[in-house]
Amino acid sequence: MKFEVLHKCPTTGARVGKLYTDHGVIDTPCFMPVGTKATVKSLSPEEVRETGSQILLSNTYHLYLRPGHELIERAGGLHKFMNWDGAILTDSGGFQVFSLSKTRKITDDGMTFNSIIDGSKHTFTPQKVMQIQRALGSDICMAFDECTSAGIEKKKAAEAMERTLKWLDRCSEVELKPHQIMFPIAQGNMFEDLRIESLQRTLPYCKCGVAIGGLSVGESSDVMYRMLDAIKPYLPENMPHYLMGVGTADYILEGVERGIDMFDCVLPTRTARNGTAMTMNGYVTVRNGAYKEDFSPIEDGCDCYACRNYTRAYIRHLINSDEILGGRLLSIHNVRFLQRLMAKIRQAIAQGRYPEFKKEFLSHFEK
Amino acid sequence: MKFEVLHKCPTTGARVGKLYTDHGVIDTPCFMPVGTKATVKSLSPEEVRETGSQILLSNTYHLYLRPGHELIERAGGLHKFMNWDGAILTDSGGFQVFSLSKTRKITDDGMTFNSIIDGSKHTFTPQKVMQIQRALGSDICMAFDECTSAGIEKKKAAEAMERTLKWLDRCSEVELKPHQIMFPIAQGNMFEDLRIESLQRTLPYCKCGVAIGGLSVGESSDVMYRMLDAIKPYLPENMPHYLMGVGTADYILEGVERGIDMFDCVLPTRTARNGTAMTMNGYVTVRNGAYKEDFSPIEDGCDCYACRNYTRAYIRHLINSDEILGGRLLSIHNVRFLQRLMAKIRQAIAQGRYPEFKKEFLSHFEK
Repeated sequence: MKFEVLHKCPTTGARVGKLYTDHGVIDTPCFMPVGTKATVKSLSPEEVRETGSQILLSNTYHLYLRPGHELIERAGGLHKFMNWDGAILTDSGGFQVFSLSKTRKITDDGMTFNSIIDGSKHTFTPQKVMQIQRALGSDICMAFDECTSAGIEKKKAAEAMERTLKWLDRCSEVELKPHQIMFPIAQGNMFEDLRIESLQRTLPYCKCGVAIGGLSVGESSDVMYRMLDAIKPYLPENMPHYLMGVGTADYILEGVERGIDMFDCVLPTRTARNGTAMTMNGYVTVRNGAYKEDFSPIEDGCDCYACRNYTRAYIRHLINSDEILGGRLLSIHNVRFLQRLMAKIRQAIAQGRYPEFKKEFLSHFEK
Repeated sequence: MKFEVLHKCPTTGARVGKLYTDHGVIDTPCFMPVGTKATVKSLSPEEVRETGSQILLSNTYHLYLRPGHELIERAGGLHKFMNWDGAILTDSGGFQVFSLSKTRKITDDGMTFNSIIDGSKHTFTPQKVMQIQRALGSDICMAFDECTSAGIEKKKAAEAMERTLKWLDRCSEVELKPHQIMFPIAQGNMFEDLRIESLQRTLPYCKCGVAIGGLSVGESSDVMYRMLDAIKPYLPENMPHYLMGVGTADYILEGVERGIDMFDCVLPTRTARNGTAMTMNGYVTVRNGAYKEDFSPIEDGCDCYACRNYTRAYIRHLINSDEILGGRLLSIHNVRFLQRLMAKIRQAIAQGRYPEFKKEFLSHFEK
């Protein structure tokens, strides 16, 4: 895996790059749609590809529980299993145990938790999590980390940071397949000094990428931006910086300005299934009565399959009738919207006008 | 609209034909997938087209209630609204009032019923039902009929038949759009003499097609075949014969033998969403544990998108994880399965070996 920076914004941290993987080249800054259970909800791989997505995210936690990483390995790996020939990043499960499992026990050895499927007891150790990802065959494997909530006291945040660093050491001992690379995750909760320390002590383990974890977990956007500002001077230039779990247009624009190259979020597909479209002007709640007889596309000027072929009135009818095609069309649109946004961002950076682009975009974007 | 018969089986009623509509030619015998609410559940029109489907069925009852036929007319008609350029047949709503509305009142004037959406009270008259279909712009509009249950006494069946004939007279007075044609529906419950009488008195109203309604409503297959045998000598040669609501492989084969040219059923898409595949050898319950590590396609030799790209193990994982793509892939397969079957049927008839084909097929098909 190789990363190169092609353009740098002269006044901000924004940059354009290319990440080379065995499953294709990824133009950065990039957005990764989420395919938690080996499928981007409701979409075929061809539809995901047509949105311009070059890499998607899938989840160690879910695939380990069902259908099992060993089954997927016997199927020929996750790419073959789900018929996706683009790149795949797998999250390590640390965040999922944090957010999904009500009962969990965390020690220096790892995490013990109850399955969201049947309540059965499982243990993740750093080594095991890497072995699962080796079996899955994802291109980018995330290191095992302990994610913490916004609002905890500093002592707890420091403990979790130390534990994540211990785990990182053990993760890095596991040999991956030749095409795979591990991205370590820096933590530090909402404390600037811990964020900086975590990043600095994480960097020696980074070969081709570093992730910022534990943000977008309930803190205000101001706090998130302050954390990103704090670590910005310490981000290594020669590898991509991945801000985990972030995917709204405004967060992405602020992240890019602070040197972030990679983003992922369930938001575009989740809001789609709830009947909401993302557009360059903000959100459009297509299920609203206002669009009952609106025979225009979801978003004027959008080139996605949904906008080329269907009206708001039809999609509203589908959503209100609980018809699957409704969420599917909005998912296509929302992922394509974010890929169009990423392309605009890359172009603006390459043309040396990123700050102006961001300002102009946010002036008409309603959160 | 024009119908021509190209081949006739020398020993049975089976025949191959072509039905010409403003939205394409339909090879008969044909199977029509069901798009009740202006969408074949979970599929895009392109996917429906790729299964080989040339005509689909949609429902007056549902579209009248939501989003409303007037809205669809303002959208440019049902074809444009749902982005389907093939032919569309709309059912008249008689069967839906019979099967969906718990409270209904039937008089010689029409039916009064409560909406399945909000319980609101509505009335369908023969004229109104035709006006709704005119607004929808479907190629084939079904006449308004009274469907009855299996097991009622003959007097009741005769009354419903008389009422359906009265309604037919009123339906035929409504002027449709130039590209539209009405198919009258013969009834008669499970009484051979009523079936024959109903068909004979219906035929004068038939311009380019006749439907057999009120079968496959709970009676045994023997009874259904007996009814079809009774009316077979009276079916007009110069127009297609549509057996409503039938769509299993064995029923289709028996129907074709008795002169049926058109079929429809929700079964392929409904069973798909429940995790069951239709194959030339019978049903495959893909969600079963037996297919957990089955890395073969749903059906060997099938050319559908699902079989070309995915394994039973993956589709099982999707279905068991409630992932929409699972039901979508099985829907594609099941509709394609029926279209492959229809193509085989047409070929066998054209080659003069329909009885042998049917016998051979049923010898290895497990119901």
